[in-house]
Amino acid sequence: MTGASKLDFTGNRAAVGPQNAGPQNVGARNDNAQNCNVALVGFGTVGSSVARILCERSNTHLRLTHILNRNVERKKVDWLPPSVQWTENIDDILSSGVDIVVEVMGGLQPTEDWIRRALESGKSVVTANKQLIANCGPELISLARQMKQQIVFGASVAGGVPVISGLHEGLAGDELFKVCGILNGTCNYILSQIEANGIPFATALREAQKLGFAEADPTEDIDGLDARAKLTILARVGLHCNVRPESIVARSISKIDSVDFEYAHQLGYTIRQISWAELKTESNTTSKGDELFAAVQPALVELASPLARVEGSQNLVMATGTYGGETVFGGHGAGGHPTAVAVLSDILAIARSKQTGTSYSGQPVEKTPTVTADFTTKHYLRFLVKDRPGIIASLATILSQCGINIDSVLQKPGCPKSHLPFLITLEECQASLVEKALERINSLDFLVQPCSHLPIV
Amino acid sequence: MTGASKLDFTGNRAAVGPQNAGPQNVGARNDNAQNCNVALVGFGTVGSSVARILCERSNTHLRLTHILNRNVERKKVDWLPPSVQWTENIDDILSSGVDIVVEVMGGLQPTEDWIRRALESGKSVVTANKQLIANCGPELISLARQMKQQIVFGASVAGGVPVISGLHEGLAGDELFKVCGILNGTCNYILSQIEANGIPFATALREAQKLGFAEADPTEDIDGLDARAKLTILARVGLHCNVRPESIVARSISKIDSVDFEYAHQLGYTIRQISWAELKTESNTTSKGDELFAAVQPALVELASPLARVEGSQNLVMATGTYGGETVFGGHGAGGHPTAVAVLSDILAIARSKQTGTSYSGQPVEKTPTVTADFTTKHYLRFLVKDRPGIIASLATILSQCGINIDSVLQKPGCPKSHLPFLITLEECQASLVEKALERINSLDFLVQPCSHLPIV
Repeated sequence: MTGASKLDFTGNRAAVGPQNAGPQNVGARNDNAQNCNVALVGFGTVGSSVARILCERSNTHLRLTHILNRNVERKKVDWLPPSVQWTENIDDILSSGVDIVVEVMGGLQPTEDWIRRALESGKSVVTANKQLIANCGPELISLARQMKQQIVFGASVAGGVPVISGLHEGLAGDELFKVCGILNGTCNYILSQIEANGIPFATALREAQKLGFAEADPTEDIDGLDARAKLTILARVGLHCNVRPESIVARSISKIDSVDFEYAHQLGYTIRQISWAELKTESNTTSKGDELFAAVQPALVELASPLARVEGSQNLVMATGTYGGETVFGGHGAGGHPTAVAVLSDILAIARSKQTGTSYSGQPVEKTPTVTADFTTKHYLRFLVKDRPGIIASLATILSQCGINIDSVLQKPGCPKSHLPFLITLEECQASLVEKALERINSLDFLVQPCSHLPIV
Repeated sequence: MTGASKLDFTGNRAAVGPQNAGPQNVGARNDNAQNCNVALVGFGTVGSSVARILCERSNTHLRLTHILNRNVERKKVDWLPPSVQWTENIDDILSSGVDIVVEVMGGLQPTEDWIRRALESGKSVVTANKQLIANCGPELISLARQMKQQIVFGASVAGGVPVISGLHEGLAGDELFKVCGILNGTCNYILSQIEANGIPFATALREAQKLGFAEADPTEDIDGLDARAKLTILARVGLHCNVRPESIVARSISKIDSVDFEYAHQLGYTIRQISWAELKTESNTTSKGDELFAAVQPALVELASPLARVEGSQNLVMATGTYGGETVFGGHGAGGHPTAVAVLSDILAIARSKQTGTSYSGQPVEKTPTVTADFTTKHYLRFLVKDRPGIIASLATILSQCGINIDSVLQKPGCPKSHLPFLITLEECQASLVEKALERINSLDFLVQPCSHLPIV
């Protein structure tokens, strides 16, 4: 925190000469425009990265004043200035001269209470907490407005990839109607491993856990709940849709088998966990109101698509607008340093606009659409059967009775007759039609397991 | 411009209820916070797209009040409200109540004078003019600061791709040291066509001109001057380097032949016009000061790289930071509507921060590095020779005398002995070493044409 830095606290390089008139006015909490006091709530991977970057960038105008953590004694490090106050008590921060509270602790409680109290104490908040923002974002933003403070959450989606500010500011001039992408690095890593090494899901998960790419309890990631929280936030920021996370369907990747990749490749596709939200407004549909098609699910994506090329734990978001077409944001979706960059960018954004009371997060959502996962796409159905004559005929009959057209049938040679995998792809139709057909199909006695059904996007 | 819009002029959705305290204070030029008056200078492709989006979005708070163009009578359209004032005289705008002057006219003069006068009249400026910003950006930014106005230029690089705001705000928390990308859609289209159809450069250029992807005089694009202006701006915004466009080497793509793509593919590469700027600071080199390695040139890029997959007239920028690693921005680099989205996003950004006097463009540059194109990379040398014994030996001798190691030699079978193309790739070394060797090599009598030399990045 020492050294002759030329950074002022807005992150702008200090101007020289008479044109540097200095800040026009000074925020209420900060009498010295030279300093912006920052408290870190949470000193895990992201928190310590934020502290380290603050430290290494020798930014004398952003001052780290407090660090809060449970059992704070065991957290203390020697590379931070002695002036930093270590505490386990949020009141130490709330009653201090801190300007910005940075929450990188996670969880819904006591986090929500603490953030509310911080805003009520006239402090702005930066948070990387996707579940909190997905669940309580609108209420917290509204509270921040009331208190003329800001709550900014660029790190809550896609880690270091600046997609929140990109959607809200960079593409502000467009009318976005679709955001889709790969928002969970754990799933992407596991699916890539099944694809590359032909291993079962369980093996890939175990290896990801061993390498630290998946948590001991991987449910949040595997079942799509993590990506769903992020998609909720993107739908609010990018599509201005007031949507609750639980209204978005999330499907697990745990049923994906290496044989699915073999079939997908033969068709020119691969399989990824895709988060997709697409707004169909009244004017462009015949329905009565706005509809948001949204889901987090494993899906077939063309090998030529940027989505297919996302490697390891990378994230990618594609935003589509009426005027600008498709824009892509990609990069490190997780990790201490990349997420810390997003946190720090948010801190700098608040510091920069501390006086105005405006913020990109301070945007109330406008539309409250019906949310549905009933996408109209092509479909992939993979069966595992005890072979006997007439199987295709039975399946084709049911599909045809449901008004569904078969696009192709594919059967791998050389498989055991008692566990014969084969594939049917369907022409474009609504997912709900397919699900209705599958209810009947899954009761057929030749199936070894229920049909695996993926959309082709 | 009619219709009950819920957008306020900041682009934020209007808040309802008591939390909407309204703007805290009101800009000097705009007594009614409900309106932000916009003048369009230039009504070509981008200008008319901006007008159309302003119109279609029914944004009652951004008001298009003036349109300036030469021979304005032939430009008038019937889809704009009659309240818009059409003019050929900049003074009509400068003396009006316009808040933001949008310059989409292009050229260096009279544009620069007009922008200066607009700033001096207390108006902010949005411009898509890369040459102007590359040449006079720092002076104009400094004037804007003096006048407590803003000049914003997000549309000057990569059209609809929000890379300027992405570097400046989204990645503000990082320390970027490298930006590289594909910044010229015309070159990318032409190279893609040579690659896909095996046609000569001249044919590909002619077809691009016929389809409107290249201008009648394509020099700016082909010779890299357009991309160089953009790279200059990215180096300033992303790397905080005070650099002049003419200090950056720009090399033409006109020497690229379809045989180069054949060789490149055999090596696992393709060829793209790559704009590259990389800062080596004092601390990480042994040199005496900061060095900026920068060039716009055709180069070999790995087929697996995102750069190799940029299609047609798309743009892609990769930014690399000390903390966040690599972040990618991609999308439509040109075209009326995508560029207009960038312009409109800039207008909204100014409207949002009208009261603060802060702006992402208002960032003086800090470093004034030495600029060099002397990258250390692998190299590709393609020769066209009259075959005779001893050619490889002569070349190998000169290269070895210059301290350069050969990596591979490749010769296509079945070519005429009088025009025999073949390829030498070199191990990593400085470009200047290779150029010194080529001075000697190019005087050898068996060469049908000078050696074609590309870096492998």
